[in-house]
Amino acid sequence: MPFYVSGQIRDHEELIALHPEDAIHKRGINLKTRHEAISINREDRTVTVRNLEDGMFLEQEYGILVLATGARAIMPDIPGINLTGVFPMKEFQDGIDLKSFLDNQKPKKSVIMGGGYIGVEVAESFKRVGMEVTVVEAMPRIMSIMDDDMSLLVEAELRKSGINVITGRRVMGLEGDMLVRSVRLDDGSSVEADCVLVSIGVTPSSEMAAKAGLELGPRGAVQVDRYQRTSDPHIFAAGDCCTVFHRLLCRDVFIPLGLTANRQGRMCGENIILETQGKKLKPFPGVVGTAVTKVFDLEIAKTGIGQMEIERYGIRHIGDVKIKAKTLPGYFPGFSDIWVKLFFEDDSRVIVGGQIIGGPGSALRINTVVAAATKGMRLDELYTLDTAYAPPISPVWDPLLIAARSGMKE
Amino acid sequence: MPFYVSGQIRDHEELIALHPEDAIHKRGINLKTRHEAISINREDRTVTVRNLEDGMFLEQEYGILVLATGARAIMPDIPGINLTGVFPMKEFQDGIDLKSFLDNQKPKKSVIMGGGYIGVEVAESFKRVGMEVTVVEAMPRIMSIMDDDMSLLVEAELRKSGINVITGRRVMGLEGDMLVRSVRLDDGSSVEADCVLVSIGVTPSSEMAAKAGLELGPRGAVQVDRYQRTSDPHIFAAGDCCTVFHRLLCRDVFIPLGLTANRQGRMCGENIILETQGKKLKPFPGVVGTAVTKVFDLEIAKTGIGQMEIERYGIRHIGDVKIKAKTLPGYFPGFSDIWVKLFFEDDSRVIVGGQIIGGPGSALRINTVVAAATKGMRLDELYTLDTAYAPPISPVWDPLLIAARSGMKE
Repeated sequence: MPFYVSGQIRDHEELIALHPEDAIHKRGINLKTRHEAISINREDRTVTVRNLEDGMFLEQEYGILVLATGARAIMPDIPGINLTGVFPMKEFQDGIDLKSFLDNQKPKKSVIMGGGYIGVEVAESFKRVGMEVTVVEAMPRIMSIMDDDMSLLVEAELRKSGINVITGRRVMGLEGDMLVRSVRLDDGSSVEADCVLVSIGVTPSSEMAAKAGLELGPRGAVQVDRYQRTSDPHIFAAGDCCTVFHRLLCRDVFIPLGLTANRQGRMCGENIILETQGKKLKPFPGVVGTAVTKVFDLEIAKTGIGQMEIERYGIRHIGDVKIKAKTLPGYFPGFSDIWVKLFFEDDSRVIVGGQIIGGPGSALRINTVVAAATKGMRLDELYTLDTAYAPPISPVWDPLLIAARSGMKE
Repeated sequence: MPFYVSGQIRDHEELIALHPEDAIHKRGINLKTRHEAISINREDRTVTVRNLEDGMFLEQEYGILVLATGARAIMPDIPGINLTGVFPMKEFQDGIDLKSFLDNQKPKKSVIMGGGYIGVEVAESFKRVGMEVTVVEAMPRIMSIMDDDMSLLVEAELRKSGINVITGRRVMGLEGDMLVRSVRLDDGSSVEADCVLVSIGVTPSSEMAAKAGLELGPRGAVQVDRYQRTSDPHIFAAGDCCTVFHRLLCRDVFIPLGLTANRQGRMCGENIILETQGKKLKPFPGVVGTAVTKVFDLEIAKTGIGQMEIERYGIRHIGDVKIKAKTLPGYFPGFSDIWVKLFFEDDSRVIVGGQIIGGPGSALRINTVVAAATKGMRLDELYTLDTAYAPPISPVWDPLLIAARSGMKE
């Protein structure tokens, strides 16, 4: 029988939709909340669990163990990181704590450490509640998952919206007296801040797995095979704590995202059932690294291979094309600029990735690039797609078609 | 040398974007505006043209002739069709005429004959300028391009928005004295109306082609091959006047739409050049019948095979699945209902069509179904797509994935 230890509830949406505790209890499953799994004893097939209410330990036996320990925000080891007013933004509780701090302390000046997805999203929220906002990014540019030229568009949008952006600067320490007061940078300068968000990334919660001798993969995530099985046949893992197969890179990566976690969880459960029935397991199909966000008036989307992947993995013979178009016909109210970048194999012209930035209706267009890249569609095949045209929805030539056509000429 | 006779300018957008007359003149092309092509003399390879300014005729020689005569609104042969206040809505001029009538006459009650795309779009416009609006549709339901259940959603949206909808009733005549006053239906009842829109469909302007003995195809459209060539090797045709190849039905159809017309025009021009250079022509890839619109708060999209195509062409062994979901996570401001219907081959589970109705962000999702149907993607392949997830853009499980998953269980 599988055994469940409560971890974080990843997705507040699901909490609302399913009331999982109720659902689990109704099914007669032994759910232990306020219990922390401490260590895995693989020889005995037991987990040492601490009851957080009374501090007592117990040994829980398992036939099959599932690790769904997730990931956690990286908190850098710098002076002042424990000052009041410094928050990560990963767990539901982080949001509650931050909200309560904003309500009670009414901070005026904020610094956001890290200009990735979380950083830019919170930058917008902080600005909207009336704070001065400075984003400090150690890399030469924010949103480094996107190409240089694309991330500069995001930076321009932040600046246009009154956000102060500092790139290529590292935070050396936080200063204050109980409450954070300023942020010290690596050039000796300081930025005043009575509220600091730490959003420099997440790391898989894989320590317990590592201590039990399970194999770890990229970024220290629990290494799983395509069936969500770890290096121990009796232990499966799913979600932000483990690796995922990248369909286009053909390698395991650590890309902790909601849909992947959700999908791996289902797959893991299904495969455990199949295994107990002696049936053939189903491989997890993998991801293509799709990620989207919205910051102020810009929607930002990426899928597949881009500059970052090309550099990181030394991929060769990839061409790209970038176009600027409109989301709607130029005479229709509400149109806005949209930039589309497509990546393709030089020779075959097979699409391997794309990036889109623009106004409303930009990000959803990435799903068609996802389909194209997953199915190995060529630029000329994308170009011939009979896409939607109606003035409130799209121009005659969808920006994706324009990009494909331009790419065909490259 | 190709020879150009000015026809309608199909797309106001292009007019704005390109100023085609200027562009054509600059290229040293002989453009004759205010000239009407009267007949084609295929033996002599000439076109008889009338100068609309002085009424004189001339014979214009051609090496290759392109027919781009478009389509026109069908005006039924019923009493009163020529009364003042009765308008089609096809040409740019129709819009100008209607606008001027609205401004000068300030009509209060309108009837719209035909509940297709144009009908429902204008119904919204008429309502927004403050008129009472009644849509009269001869078929049992409006938007008959959509499935029964889907078109009922559109009808409900119209009614919710204060539009009166009468289905299964034919307009027998228009009554009035110079100005239209009422519309008589086939059950003997009358609807008051001082403004009537006729939007019962369009018909290809193919009379000249027919008179010249060119082969006609479905709905009387000029029959072209995949290279845009008519049955006369010296005559090409493109746009709303001619047939188009349907990639999924594997037959020629008459589906006059903007992107297709635009695409065929380019293809036609390219092929004529290739032919004069003695090179191999390029086949037009065809369409899958994508069509979208927006009416009040609903976006409406269709592609590929649905109920209508199944019935009309006697297609067998097609399964379908319909789901209702949300456009965004249920906790995010601005989410709305979305209905997705997918059609697939019973056996192979290859996707052959889809229909989507819902709030903002619904219609653009059809492009992923277009890619899937064009590339012959199976339901389980669509289900595994790594689609975009971010609360302002989409729920964790995109409605398309939910539909695919439901279809897999059917």
